[in-house]
Amino acid sequence: MTVNDDATSSSAIDLPAVEHAHARIAPFIHFTPVIANSPLNDKVGARLYFKCENLQRAGVFKVRGAFNAIYSLTDAQAERGVVTSSSGNQAASVSLAARTRGIPAYIAMPRVALRSKVAAVERFGGNIVWVDAQGAVPTSAEYEQTAAAIQARTGASPVHPYNDSRTIAGQGSCTLEFLGQVPDLDLVLAPVGGGGLLAGTALTAKLLKPGIRVVGCEPEMADDAQRSFRAGHIIPQLQPRTIADGLRTSLGDLTFPLIRQYVDDIVTVSEDEIVTAMRLAWEVLKLVIEPSSAVPLAALLSGKLAARGKNVGIILSGGNVDLGSLPWLTKTSN
Amino acid sequence: MTVNDDATSSSAIDLPAVEHAHARIAPFIHFTPVIANSPLNDKVGARLYFKCENLQRAGVFKVRGAFNAIYSLTDAQAERGVVTSSSGNQAASVSLAARTRGIPAYIAMPRVALRSKVAAVERFGGNIVWVDAQGAVPTSAEYEQTAAAIQARTGASPVHPYNDSRTIAGQGSCTLEFLGQVPDLDLVLAPVGGGGLLAGTALTAKLLKPGIRVVGCEPEMADDAQRSFRAGHIIPQLQPRTIADGLRTSLGDLTFPLIRQYVDDIVTVSEDEIVTAMRLAWEVLKLVIEPSSAVPLAALLSGKLAARGKNVGIILSGGNVDLGSLPWLTKTSN
Repeated sequence: MTVNDDATSSSAIDLPAVEHAHARIAPFIHFTPVIANSPLNDKVGARLYFKCENLQRAGVFKVRGAFNAIYSLTDAQAERGVVTSSSGNQAASVSLAARTRGIPAYIAMPRVALRSKVAAVERFGGNIVWVDAQGAVPTSAEYEQTAAAIQARTGASPVHPYNDSRTIAGQGSCTLEFLGQVPDLDLVLAPVGGGGLLAGTALTAKLLKPGIRVVGCEPEMADDAQRSFRAGHIIPQLQPRTIADGLRTSLGDLTFPLIRQYVDDIVTVSEDEIVTAMRLAWEVLKLVIEPSSAVPLAALLSGKLAARGKNVGIILSGGNVDLGSLPWLTKTSN
Repeated sequence: MTVNDDATSSSAIDLPAVEHAHARIAPFIHFTPVIANSPLNDKVGARLYFKCENLQRAGVFKVRGAFNAIYSLTDAQAERGVVTSSSGNQAASVSLAARTRGIPAYIAMPRVALRSKVAAVERFGGNIVWVDAQGAVPTSAEYEQTAAAIQARTGASPVHPYNDSRTIAGQGSCTLEFLGQVPDLDLVLAPVGGGGLLAGTALTAKLLKPGIRVVGCEPEMADDAQRSFRAGHIIPQLQPRTIADGLRTSLGDLTFPLIRQYVDDIVTVSEDEIVTAMRLAWEVLKLVIEPSSAVPLAALLSGKLAARGKNVGIILSGGNVDLGSLPWLTKTSN
């Protein structure tokens, strides 16, 4: 088993850290394909390249960070297990990485988590601990309380879904691959929730290719990243009600400074624009993507992000949806 | 423009013909990725490799045969256009290839064709001619009558969706790529309707790697290929009512001898098994595939095809579906 204990949850992150993360996780993850599509190119007036992290293991980019964090633990740390808080994708990713290393995963999950995401955790052998919450969606404090109780009981190491250097470096490995596959990208787009993917994407892209532009994309209904970016300090999201369930979290104190340093802009899109882009991606790209993943495409299709004539890289972050309830067939009520 | 006029609709097909076809069409088509998936491997007890022709241009493998046939025409033939009969995928494929060569495409289509497939033809600039039919689904004779009338009026060259050497050689190019991507395949599975994909797949696989097994997969509700294969002569499908709309056609006199010569077996699956496999592919593979494409996976999941411990190649033939009406959300009534 390849284990390196040189990375901690708050190490500085530079290009070697991302390269190291990629080497560490490469045996366990998919090197995902990049897809191009003429009809979408024509529609947007640009050359679009889609990095298919929906085809990643567990159907989401988050396995990169989870594998990197979990394989960074010493054997002594690892045997007590890991703990994370998540509404879904992080939960499945940590469960899979922990099972692969042969250690227990404890997952603090909200009772409102999508059925498909709960099923994924169960499939990967994660131990679900439901978060006691006042509202339907737990607050950060309620999540933390549950995670802290698990930690006290088991000695498990926390693996934060985004505010963790090992997680961010792992997510950056996606862009390391992407720029190897399409070196000529002018612009890279990633969705932003807690900021782990966007921070990892931006720092990797800028350090590899300083002239490149990186833009974060988020729902209007959870626009804390745009507001924080403009204000220069973190403004937490209070009542995120977007269909993009992966993007309801607020920025962290590790992701925010990286986003300020490396990201060029953050644009927002409406719920309707997200659903339209999601449906079009399914129809034309033939890829099952979740609402969060449709946000960058929505920004392009709605004209809120100028990209005419550019080579645009779009990270399709994940593909975990409930197929029994699709937003264009049922009334959305999030 | 690369044009070769050495191939005709009834030339013999050998490995050089397939290699020639691949070289001819490579500038116009996608070299599609191969996807692997651990959860499905565990479920079936084999290593599965999915060749993603749903990610092919126009969302279907048929562009291979269409480009090969259309770029095999002389300039004098080409300028009068091409004509084909199709309920959908062949229609879009011929429209796209003809538009690419800058010539007219005439498409004899049934009025019952899926809305999404009609839209694809319109998007690619094909000229639709509706087939006059007694029943909802036109008979072969009714299709031929319409196509013959177009041909008489325009001088357009027919491009048969499967019973055409150029088409079959084009479809074979998919397996040429596939065995380059995964040389260790023990078994290759393809759906069978008219037999163009299965014939091209089988002859290419067997000529490249004689020890390989090739099995055709079809719906019980359109099991003419299995019955013909067992009887030793073509038994046409009379009233195909399967949800797998791409597989309702009967074998042709060019595809059948190739299937007899190169295919090891043909297995059939129920409508429920098709829908279950289709939904699972969407859920786990994160790929939008059409019902026809789910037939080989259905054969594996239902245990009707033994593959334990094998390296199994599965051609996901296409991804053109109406997203507004999914078989697990609406009652199927085909």
